[in-house]
Amino acid sequence: MPHFTTEDAAVLRVAPDFDLGSIDPDSTPGFTGKKADAAALFTEHDEEIAELQERMFANARVGRAAPSVLLLLQGMDTSGKGGIVRHVIGGVDPQGVQIASFKAPTQEERGQDFLVRIREQLPAAGKIGVFDRSHYEDVLIQRVRAFAPPEEIERRYGAIVDFEDELAASGTKLIKVMLHISKGEQGARLAERLERPDKHWKYNPGDVDERLLWDQYQDAYEIALRRTSTETSPWYCVPANRKWFSRLVVKGLLLDALRGFDLQWPAADFDVEVEKRRLAESA
Amino acid sequence: MPHFTTEDAAVLRVAPDFDLGSIDPDSTPGFTGKKADAAALFTEHDEEIAELQERMFANARVGRAAPSVLLLLQGMDTSGKGGIVRHVIGGVDPQGVQIASFKAPTQEERGQDFLVRIREQLPAAGKIGVFDRSHYEDVLIQRVRAFAPPEEIERRYGAIVDFEDELAASGTKLIKVMLHISKGEQGARLAERLERPDKHWKYNPGDVDERLLWDQYQDAYEIALRRTSTETSPWYCVPANRKWFSRLVVKGLLLDALRGFDLQWPAADFDVEVEKRRLAESA
Repeated sequence: MPHFTTEDAAVLRVAPDFDLGSIDPDSTPGFTGKKADAAALFTEHDEEIAELQERMFANARVGRAAPSVLLLLQGMDTSGKGGIVRHVIGGVDPQGVQIASFKAPTQEERGQDFLVRIREQLPAAGKIGVFDRSHYEDVLIQRVRAFAPPEEIERRYGAIVDFEDELAASGTKLIKVMLHISKGEQGARLAERLERPDKHWKYNPGDVDERLLWDQYQDAYEIALRRTSTETSPWYCVPANRKWFSRLVVKGLLLDALRGFDLQWPAADFDVEVEKRRLAESA
Repeated sequence: MPHFTTEDAAVLRVAPDFDLGSIDPDSTPGFTGKKADAAALFTEHDEEIAELQERMFANARVGRAAPSVLLLLQGMDTSGKGGIVRHVIGGVDPQGVQIASFKAPTQEERGQDFLVRIREQLPAAGKIGVFDRSHYEDVLIQRVRAFAPPEEIERRYGAIVDFEDELAASGTKLIKVMLHISKGEQGARLAERLERPDKHWKYNPGDVDERLLWDQYQDAYEIALRRTSTETSPWYCVPANRKWFSRLVVKGLLLDALRGFDLQWPAADFDVEVEKRRLAESA
């Protein structure tokens, strides 16, 4: 069974005329199946993903120039970023994964260029990195809350494009995903966190403060995605009211990124026959 | 079905009169079932492990004093350390896991006390840390190869016990596992790496150099485990010729460590009713 491919995801790609308001968070563009079909499909290529990841890891381990993947996740609170990490990345060998979660910058970080703390968390060669939030917060909450002056926000869009071009040139394949939920769905998910004592820890009164600025955030997302979706590192705006859909999409993008490297197992940098003899003699 | 418990593992605990040579790497002490029974048992408590891990993570997230777990893995090449990480730790939410793999120390690290680089990789509160090799290399290869003078090696056993007591006092539950394989089994596993081109990257000619010092390594392990197996942080010497057994044991030790914390979901540090009202008004 074919997975949800990058080609299928073309319809989710952000173009310069991107209109976030026109995208229905309940929809499943590019996928004609139902939830049960997605469930069957979801684990279909897990072994292949595991093997491709190991191949990438192997190339880096023996010192060959190896690429890396960086899955960058953005979305409003409760949009399912953590679930993607658990369910999509959870299937990969943890030794090959590097996860960074970006909170509000510290006092020290605020004194540096916004990309400094980002660079420190880039995945090593051969690894799959995940950014749970990212440098995009510096043009999202920072824009909405006016934490930085407009001319600095303006400068950042270009700086981000340059930075991501540089990443691509150095062998890091970036997969940028915005998980797009509706305000109603967020309300329901936050209400569940308040209902269930085992979910209270996930709730923060500040979540409602941001929610009250919903429209401003949607604007900030639309502008940010428009201005930073490039040929090399496009944005995918993934409807995420149905978690099974957004997870299927991200897994497909990851699989295609790994396939795209077309990596072979690294050849031995030692004489295999000599080593077989040495091993036989070491019994 | 009960898991393989810490009580079952009592027979694997290293006592002061520990004799490594008397432990059969093919055996499965404490377990009366067969491979198929172990397979059934292996995933039985995955949901519970996931929930306990999330509970620990939650406590740390809301700023409560939260414990952490540190699974420390030692063993000769091919003893299955990577497989433990993949199969035991692979089931846990990657956001709650921190893996460190210790290679030969760099020039800079050699100029520092041997514990400096170890401390830098300790798991944060609420996390499950894994050490693939550890500070024990500093009394294993360093002893066998005489990379450090005897009196320094001698000093390290005590320094390790002090360090681990300190870890325990600060809330880190240490699980120390030596994966014990036979020389014959290692030979077979290395031969497989040489046979299969997709495994060549895992082979290093240096592996045979160390293998030639097998008996010296067994001695170094026996001494290290004897001298650092304490009431608080005991060593488990786990027969590892049968991978299904060693994985079952480690998963059981992890489950019991998490259960032992007896953690509750953290109570809300906000007024739940007030927040429900605020949320309702934010529609």
